[in-house]
Formats: sequence, structure tokens, C-alpha cells
Amino acid sequence: MTKLEQPDFQAYIKMAHALADKTGAIILPHFRSNTVVDDKGGSAFDPVTAADRDAETAIREALASAYPTHGIVGEEFDDTCGTSDFSWIIDPIDGTRAFIMGQPLWGTLIGLTSGGAPLLGLMDQPFTGERFWSGEDEAFYRRDGETTAIRVRPCASLGEAILTSTTPDMFEDADSETFDRLSRAVRLRRFGGDCYNYCLLALGQIDLVVEADLKPFDILPLIPIIERGGGVVSTWDGGDPKDGGRILAAGDARAHAAAVEMLSR
Amino acid sequence: MTKLEQPDFQAYIKMAHALADKTGAIILPHFRSNTVVDDKGGSAFDPVTAADRDAETAIREALASAYPTHGIVGEEFDDTCGTSDFSWIIDPIDGTRAFIMGQPLWGTLIGLTSGGAPLLGLMDQPFTGERFWSGEDEAFYRRDGETTAIRVRPCASLGEAILTSTTPDMFEDADSETFDRLSRAVRLRRFGGDCYNYCLLALGQIDLVVEADLKPFDILPLIPIIERGGGVVSTWDGGDPKDGGRILAAGDARAHAAAVEMLSR
Repeated sequence: MTKLEQPDFQAYIKMAHALADKTGAIILPHFRSNTVVDDKGGSAFDPVTAADRDAETAIREALASAYPTHGIVGEEFDDTCGTSDFSWIIDPIDGTRAFIMGQPLWGTLIGLTSGGAPLLGLMDQPFTGERFWSGEDEAFYRRDGETTAIRVRPCASLGEAILTSTTPDMFEDADSETFDRLSRAVRLRRFGGDCYNYCLLALGQIDLVVEADLKPFDILPLIPIIERGGGVVSTWDGGDPKDGGRILAAGDARAHAAAVEMLSR
Repeated sequence: MTKLEQPDFQAYIKMAHALADKTGAIILPHFRSNTVVDDKGGSAFDPVTAADRDAETAIREALASAYPTHGIVGEEFDDTCGTSDFSWIIDPIDGTRAFIMGQPLWGTLIGLTSGGAPLLGLMDQPFTGERFWSGEDEAFYRRDGETTAIRVRPCASLGEAILTSTTPDMFEDADSETFDRLSRAVRLRRFGGDCYNYCLLALGQIDLVVEADLKPFDILPLIPIIERGGGVVSTWDGGDPKDGGRILAAGDARAHAAAVEMLSR
């Protein structure tokens, strides 16, 4: 087995911040403007904005210049494979539907994997001026120039939990029933939020996020934020979440275990 | 029939802004802090925060001093009847669930009625720094010190519409089916948002808001913002929305008519 290249963590997180500064400036002028909405084809409503593509192009150019050996996986364009162990995982506007509705719950996701495993992640919400990211051992939040370490909150049981999910429409058939069973066993369930919800979990505001049909770039950049904030994230059956699909995040391992038990039935 | 007292519109809207400045300063420090959550009783989850009560107390004190003859209807305390035609309708934190989850979609609602009819309304979101309100003939939006007149957007048919609602859990039984039928006939349906959604409608970002079980103070302050922004708001059957209940707001009268038709079946 080949030894993985050593990551230069501080340089990479600095790059993630620089990329987010760049994308925020590109995306924000499009927010609540008359955005051109395309349909990627098929019957699903999947808006893609000019902002999305311009931001991803800017990220790809900056990364190609700074780290030409790194791979790049994004939502809008074909993957760049790279020749090193490192791959950047980017989603300029996670929550395109929230974006086109004018709700400030979308975010720019920037992650880096090493040998396929999440190394660092960042979520930027330029309208509210909020940024969440993972350090090497902690998770952080910044607003108005003030950075604080953030942490999940305790939640001993499902009965105490606030659960969120972007929309009930993301669950198909049997998944819908399973989700319904779990979400009715908690203290409060609420919809809407996309990537913002996972960050609120790391911030200790909510206890569970339960979703389905996520792409790898929807979750990979969030994994280090959740985990280094003290949370747990997995697939519904407790497996590795890095390929997306049906995802469960919890602030407390006890609530996570109880949720896995209900979601795996 | 007694002639109604003449409103001093500019003085009242100035008061509404002053009240919102006051409540924002009271509420914001509680947002994402460890808020004490009470249950108002019954089986429904109905969180009330210290912020909510402190803000309403401050509003009541300011109004009692400035307009002692005006009535006050709020969420947290008993109604003050007043001896004039004017009543202030206040909800310091509309969207308490969004508030306790840390989502910045709640808002402070301040309205004034004259002889029971909505005269002016204001919605303040102090975390994002956004404020929406009704002038005498227009609706306005302010952020970062910049005020702009806002306007709904055209939407000729349900098939073009983006529809929002705070949660599918607000609809009971038959209403749930009726809502489902309508919300599946539109281009995109999305949940989450409370008062923020009605303001996004006035801002021309979304086309329909469909809700149920609203209290008068949940909708009265929003009616002038929606209407003077060019929109239409009514009950599901097209009636007067001022008593709350099942509410439909639309940016375009054509989409409104089509929605009433489906909701009245």
C-alpha cells in the first residue's frame, strides 16, 4: 500500500478560505437578481444558475494554478482527476432552490479529500456573512470578523431532538415512511435548509439532519465540520457517508444510535 | 356609522421602525444563545422564549406612552383594548421554531389596524439586517442602510409558480390533501420560512404562499406589505385574510385566482 502524501493542512484551509472569498463575490450579485434558470434535463426541477457556473469556473482556475496535481470534483463540470492523493470537492451553490427563492440558507461548499477520505471542509453563506469550517481538530464559525470554535450540543434521546431535513419531497416511497416514523418520534421536525442545517447542527442548534438522495459533493465538505464539531455523520444504516445517498447527521452519538436503529428497520 | 379617526401615517410608520429597532436589540442577543424554551401547555410544541416576552413588553411600554388610546394585540400577553380606532398588532418573534433552530427566517411583525382594517405593516429580521414594510402606496425593503421600493413578479399560471409554506405539518386531514393537490401543480414547492416567505413574495422572489392555522397577528402586519407590493392575500376561498386561518398569498392575481379555484374545491 502506497503511503499517502502528507497534507499541508494550514495551506489548504487557507486556500479554501481564499476560494470562498472569491465565490462569495461572484455569487452574491446574482442572489435575488433575475437569475436565468436552466433545467438540466429530465423531469426533475434542477435549477442551475450562471452564478453557480461562474463560481465553479473561478474555483477550478484558482486550484489548477495553485495545485495542478490535485483532482477537482464539482457539480457543474466534469471531474478533473489529478495525479496526487488530493481532490477538491466543490459545490458553489448547495441549495439552488433556496437560492432562486431568495432564502439565505444556501451555501458554497468546499472540501478536500486525501485518498478519498475527507480532510477539511468549509461552508460559506455570503449573504448572511457566515462561514463554517473544519480545523484539524475543531470546527469554527466566523461572522463579522469574529471567529469562534463551535460544538454540537448533547441530546440523549430522540424525544429531545430537533430534526431537520431540506424537504419531505426528497424521500421516495419506503424511505418516506421510514423518515416519517423517525421524524414523528422527535420533539420537533422542520423542513428547509440544505447545507445550512448541517452547520447549525455543528453549532449546537439542532440535533439531527436526515436526508436522502445526496450527491458526494453535497456531503463530503460537511463531514469534517460535523465530526470536528463533535457530531456523527453516516448513512442511514450507520455506514460511511462519503458517497452521499441517504444521510444521517447527529450532534450526539446517543441520538445517532437511536436514529440508526429506526432508520435501519 | 361613525367616521374613523384620520391616521397620521408617517408618524405611525416612524413608530413602527422605532419599535423594530428596539425589539431587534432585545431579541438578537438571545438568538442562538441557550434560550429557555417553555411549553405553553397542550400537546403542541409551542416554544416561547424570554426574548419574545421581553420584546413584547418593550413594545407595549413604548406604545402605551406614545399612543395611550391605541389598542394592542400581541402574542404573549392579553389584548389592550384602547379607546381609539387604532390597534397595534405585534408578534415579536414570528417563527419561534426557526428561531430556536438558529435559522434566520423568523421576524418581528408590527402592524397597525384602523377600525379593524390593516393600515400599515413591518417585518424586521435583525440577524440578516433586513426590514420590509408598507408605505402608504408602496412596499419597501431596507438592508445596509439602503432602502428600495419592492414589487411582486408576474406569474401567469400555477405551472410557473414557486410555492412556499412553513411546514406540511400545519395542514390537517382534508386541508392536507387540498394543499398537496395545489402544491404538486406548481413548478416548485418548498417548506420553511414563516413570515419571511410573505416578504420574499413582495420582493418578487416567490409566487405563492399557502398556509393554515394562522393567528390574526401572524398575517395582519404582512397584509399591507403584500398588497402594496402589488400582491393579493386572502383566505383559501378568496375571503378577507385579517382573521388568519387558512391563508393564500400570491404575487400575481392570475396565480391567485387559479389557486383559489383549487383550494375551494
